Amino acid sequence: MFGSSIGNIFKITTWGESHGKAVGVVVDGCPAGLPLSEEDIQIFLNRRKPGQSPYATPRNEDDQVEILSGVFEGRTTGTPISMMVWNKTARSADYSEIASYYRPGHADYTFDEKYGFRDYRGGGRSSGRETIGRVAAGAIASKFLNTLGIRLHAYTSSIGSVAIDENRKDFSDIFNNPLNMPDKEAALQAEQLLQEMMANKDSVGGTIDCEITGLPSGIGDPVFEKLDANLAKAIMSIGSVKGVEIGDGFQVTSAFGSENNDAFYIKDNKVTKKTNHAGGILGGISDGSPIYLRAAIKPTPSIFQTQQTVNKDGENIDIQIKGRHDPVIVPRAVVVVESMAAITVMDALLANMTSRMDHIVKFYKG
Amino acid sequence: MFGSSIGNIFKITTWGESHGKAVGVVVDGCPAGLPLSEEDIQIFLNRRKPGQSPYATPRNEDDQVEILSGVFEGRTTGTPISMMVWNKTARSADYSEIASYYRPGHADYTFDEKYGFRDYRGGGRSSGRETIGRVAAGAIASKFLNTLGIRLHAYTSSIGSVAIDENRKDFSDIFNNPLNMPDKEAALQAEQLLQEMMANKDSVGGTIDCEITGLPSGIGDPVFEKLDANLAKAIMSIGSVKGVEIGDGFQVTSAFGSENNDAFYIKDNKVTKKTNHAGGILGGISDGSPIYLRAAIKPTPSIFQTQQTVNKDGENIDIQIKGRHDPVIVPRAVVVVESMAAITVMDALLANMTSRMDHIVKFYKG
Amino acid sequence: MFGSSIGNIFKITTWGESHGKAVGVVVDGCPAGLPLSEEDIQIFLNRRKPGQSPYATPRNEDDQVEILSGVFEGRTTGTPISMMVWNKTARSADYSEIASYYRPGHADYTFDEKYGFRDYRGGGRSSGRETIGRVAAGAIASKFLNTLGIRLHAYTSSIGSVAIDENRKDFSDIFNNPLNMPDKEAALQAEQLLQEMMANKDSVGGTIDCEITGLPSGIGDPVFEKLDANLAKAIMSIGSVKGVEIGDGFQVTSAFGSENNDAFYIKDNKVTKKTNHAGGILGGISDGSPIYLRAAIKPTPSIFQTQQTVNKDGENIDIQIKGRHDPVIVPRAVVVVESMAAITVMDALLANMTSRMDHIVKFYKG
Amino acid sequence: MFGSSIGNIFKITTWGESHGKAVGVVVDGCPAGLPLSEEDIQIFLNRRKPGQSPYATPRNEDDQVEILSGVFEGRTTGTPISMMVWNKTARSADYSEIASYYRPGHADYTFDEKYGFRDYRGGGRSSGRETIGRVAAGAIASKFLNTLGIRLHAYTSSIGSVAIDENRKDFSDIFNNPLNMPDKEAALQAEQLLQEMMANKDSVGGTIDCEITGLPSGIGDPVFEKLDANLAKAIMSIGSVKGVEIGDGFQVTSAFGSENNDAFYIKDNKVTKKTNHAGGILGGISDGSPIYLRAAIKPTPSIFQTQQTVNKDGENIDIQIKGRHDPVIVPRAVVVVESMAAITVMDALLANMTSRMDHIVKFYKG
Repeated sequence: MFGSSIGNIFKITTWGESHGKAVGVVVDGCPAGLPLSEEDIQIFLNRRKPGQSPYATPRNEDDQVEILSGVFEGRTTGTPISMMVWNKTARSADYSEIASYYRPGHADYTFDEKYGFRDYRGGGRSSGRETIGRVAAGAIASKFLNTLGIRLHAYTSSIGSVAIDENRKDFSDIFNNPLNMPDKEAALQAEQLLQEMMANKDSVGGTIDCEITGLPSGIGDPVFEKLDANLAKAIMSIGSVKGVEIGDGFQVTSAFGSENNDAFYIKDNKVTKKTNHAGGILGGISDGSPIYLRAAIKPTPSIFQTQQTVNKDGENIDIQIKGRHDPVIVPRAVVVVESMAAITVMDALLANMTSRMDHIVKFYKG
Repeated sequence: MFGSSIGNIFKITTWGESHGKAVGVVVDGCPAGLPLSEEDIQIFLNRRKPGQSPYATPRNEDDQVEILSGVFEGRTTGTPISMMVWNKTARSADYSEIASYYRPGHADYTFDEKYGFRDYRGGGRSSGRETIGRVAAGAIASKFLNTLGIRLHAYTSSIGSVAIDENRKDFSDIFNNPLNMPDKEAALQAEQLLQEMMANKDSVGGTIDCEITGLPSGIGDPVFEKLDANLAKAIMSIGSVKGVEIGDGFQVTSAFGSENNDAFYIKDNKVTKKTNHAGGILGGISDGSPIYLRAAIKPTPSIFQTQQTVNKDGENIDIQIKGRHDPVIVPRAVVVVESMAAITVMDALLANMTSRMDHIVKFYKG
Repeated sequence: MFGSSIGNIFKITTWGESHGKAVGVVVDGCPAGLPLSEEDIQIFLNRRKPGQSPYATPRNEDDQVEILSGVFEGRTTGTPISMMVWNKTARSADYSEIASYYRPGHADYTFDEKYGFRDYRGGGRSSGRETIGRVAAGAIASKFLNTLGIRLHAYTSSIGSVAIDENRKDFSDIFNNPLNMPDKEAALQAEQLLQEMMANKDSVGGTIDCEITGLPSGIGDPVFEKLDANLAKAIMSIGSVKGVEIGDGFQVTSAFGSENNDAFYIKDNKVTKKTNHAGGILGGISDGSPIYLRAAIKPTPSIFQTQQTVNKDGENIDIQIKGRHDPVIVPRAVVVVESMAAITVMDALLANMTSRMDHIVKFYKG
Repeated sequence: MFGSSIGNIFKITTWGESHGKAVGVVVDGCPAGLPLSEEDIQIFLNRRKPGQSPYATPRNEDDQVEILSGVFEGRTTGTPISMMVWNKTARSADYSEIASYYRPGHADYTFDEKYGFRDYRGGGRSSGRETIGRVAAGAIASKFLNTLGIRLHAYTSSIGSVAIDENRKDFSDIFNNPLNMPDKEAALQAEQLLQEMMANKDSVGGTIDCEITGLPSGIGDPVFEKLDANLAKAIMSIGSVKGVEIGDGFQVTSAFGSENNDAFYIKDNKVTKKTNHAGGILGGISDGSPIYLRAAIKPTPSIFQTQQTVNKDGENIDIQIKGRHDPVIVPRAVVVVESMAAITVMDALLANMTSRMDHIVKFYKG
């Protein structure tokens, strides 16, 4: 079955394998008239580009995006926007060995089980490289949202046991350290942790937070197209994500109702909330407060320690993975989380335009 | 926009408000030839029926399901299965007061913002009563899955600070205590907590776990129709859920790759895994191990303490909620989580049948 | 696979068999705030109600609709609208015979081939009774469209060889004859034809036209959600329809470009067209002119003459169909065609609201 | 709203404008293990390639396809197949003039009305060049269907008033004349008609027939995913199509039931039909007989005669269209009709695999 599309009105379809010719995305349903250039996309892609820090794979792709359709004279036309990045440093030879066995923590085994065989070169379609299409689409969604005054900030909130300190949180730091943490001190500690871990040929996980501000109330469609339900799907669809939280997330499970309920009050003649345990979503619909979401990222499964696994002949074997790998996935996944959140929110905003007769009558009759 | 349907091949559409005439569901895409009776559905509905314990709303609905279509001579026909439950004890008068203000932690405000007005009686569409349709559909999906040897077990894993002990876990206990915990001792402790909490006019949250066994490998469609992504959406779409985990969930964020990777090995000539941190899903595709998922449930927002909020005239007011409410949502939500998981897995199993040429050729050419 | 839903934003799901308990529809995605009563629906259902003329089945159902959800205090709430009609005069016994053989021109054989067995009572799901759900939903769509000044007029344009005369066409006649023809004289001729045909135990086909006026330009989404493509699907999905035309339809095949092109010109400062061979759609998008579509309806397959067919034991047999049947389907299908057209146009109008940045910015920023 | 995707399980998404950088398609949901090469695609693309006869546009594109993903070691992998053709002879300058006015019979006006502006170069997205993506996807669907013994034959059945003679019909002639007619004599007459018409700077329409043989019974999903409904949509979505017929099409409207019903009988121990007025579809489900469908194609709107229209300043003007145009669309659209039919049938075949419990149990339990 098809599985590479997401969205109801703003729909993206990603394609491409890690060591195929190229990777890309078709973005359909983008409204006409949005100013858009390859530079807008490139800024986002550069945030996930490999080879930029000691904590990212040394695979050195320049990841230059090409817009092939849907933009005319600097603006989107309402037709599908096709974007592509060539795979320039594909090195299939590096991967010929993994054709014969199943790497622990990877999708080698499950792809073989599902499809009967797989493009084993660098994970094929289950590679992190697939996210290039998501990020290119996310750049468009972000530009759309910014036009409406909606901002997204995703960042690394923890690496292994090192978490940021809310008191030190400063969004301007996010791009000033290789780990994309909004807390310089935590970033330094995390770098130290990573150095030790790399010496041990090991890897580590972490968390990514995303805050969305400026979103009007009323966004999200009960009961299965709830904003939080679609965010959960979008985020969980990113490889390596094993958990998603909205607002206080799992903390609510030990909270009392009297603590967890966010009291409404009037401020500047507007309904607002004294707290935001709910993370800006009530009944699947945005309430005008900031949206908070968090993703749990697993440690990179490709580690250089000896590991036990099985080969295609059904034998138990020991392996040592080679190739180019990120010792930690979290920092490069930050822009992916932000992109998927942007795509989801944009789709929900468009859907919401059709919710009320008074709005529709005004739209068509003026 | 439509929002009341979920599923790609096996699609359910729920309808109905808490104090409207009835609630129901249309289940479309169910294969022909599945034996099905109203009794099959009723067993599931009885698990979420109100009025069965001191920890559930005293609203006394018998929730008798009626199958209106799609079943002939005891078997599904392949056509849509329409199921309905009448709302017999709707008491709109109880709710006239809440028409004028926004209850904290509820969707009153967001529905008004989205739609301009709302059916305020008992939460209308955002009521837990909407889940009747999900559970009726879940009963069908469970029967389908059982036929293939796939079993789901959902249960309360914690209430507030009281968690079950893995060493005492016994699935046969789940239905033997009003909290649906697979651990008698924990259930007694949790009951005590609930008694105290009810004395304080407060409420509490908890977690629900779901285990799925017998699922073959290969189920789930990369990259946006991943099994875990769709489970996350299905579970997060349940009112009151604020977090979802697959496998080790947020624990992976502080684990090392060497700990978190599940080593493959050969057992009885079959590929299996030594551990199951992944919760049975790799790259969005089932790996043949049990699926583990967990949901975070918030405390019931309807508490009997005085709360601050605003009314529709834009005034800050104090309120005391009346009516019939569950002091804890978790136990009654167990069957809802199990149902949404069953629906998602059934849909993915059907989708998977179209994945391989060799299977398709065999299907059509024999 | 699911197959009982249609629509991208305004989505309807029909359910129910001819001789099951009831038939119905769930309408999801209807904007909040549309005034709606059971009377609005009943007016439409009465147009397809059986037993109203000598040319319709004598099955005497009153077809009273019940709205079960989605309407509160006389207006739609934005949540799913569930509507139902009980089958009161189901007479399964009439149909026990057809369990054993395949009626020519009916779906008995294909349902058995697809599903392994079928609800044989009165055609089950393939009965014309399924269209009750479509018409109930069409009543809502029509009310929505009327609010925006958009009107639909469907009518019988021919029965057998008797076609209406464009010079005599008068919409006010449509409801003044049992054949729903906008031409009194043609209606009389067609009645005569039907009398002869009924004497011969035979049946006959015909055409239904539908005109849609007041539709703004810009409606329809290239390239697969074109307005004409979706109209074609919606109309062809009605049982007995074997052809669909937009504008001049098959006449364009022998026309020259110089004849078929509709010249644009300025009238009252507005772009308009001198002719309308295109039927109001260019490139799949409405051009502001009236939409014209036409459906080809086959003769009722249930005829009382002796027919040859096969039974389930694989024997060639002669049969004589009994039961209650329409000698001509066309007149009762008129409101079905109008309903499906209304549903399609409403869906496209909603979709179109998300097409342009300037409109979106105005919607959200004022 | 998105509009460039079609299909429920086998889903294609086309992109690209006539004079943009490239055109292409992403094919998602293709089963793994289908042998596929660029040559397979090229054969189909060559059938629609321009510049091959005096009756096709002289625009000389080589239309070489590139497969960018989804194929590994000569077989499809189950992941999305991205295919692209570069636009090599785009000549925007040719089209600068049409930026300022609306060509009759084209989508210039409706695109401007919908999106506020348009890529005016050669029709942009509404150009026939968009069909390259459809044909590339159709080549895959055809290969899939051929593997199952299902064959499609589309051909020109009439050009203007010149129709083929059923008695002379010979499929082997289809590729032996520039008009793709399965009747040499008719082709010669039609060529003469075209010569005259071209001398008059005019254009003409025609019909395309498509026959599908070898399709098993049971394909198609009631009531909105009927095989004929989806074929109607797929065919009507092709630019220039104004009508679609299944089986006898509009001829049924003047037939009697006794003529139009296809009697079943037993032949070689198999249920078959004595006639096939139904065109192989009953109740939206294939009955095992050949599928017959017909499309009405309008005359090319780009004619070289002087035409009246309006410009963007709202003035009535006379224009003379320049550029490279097909004097008749029909022959080049033959492979597009065949492709859209193949895509639709493949999708329905995959969907059908999930229809019956006995088949599903066998699939998963053996």
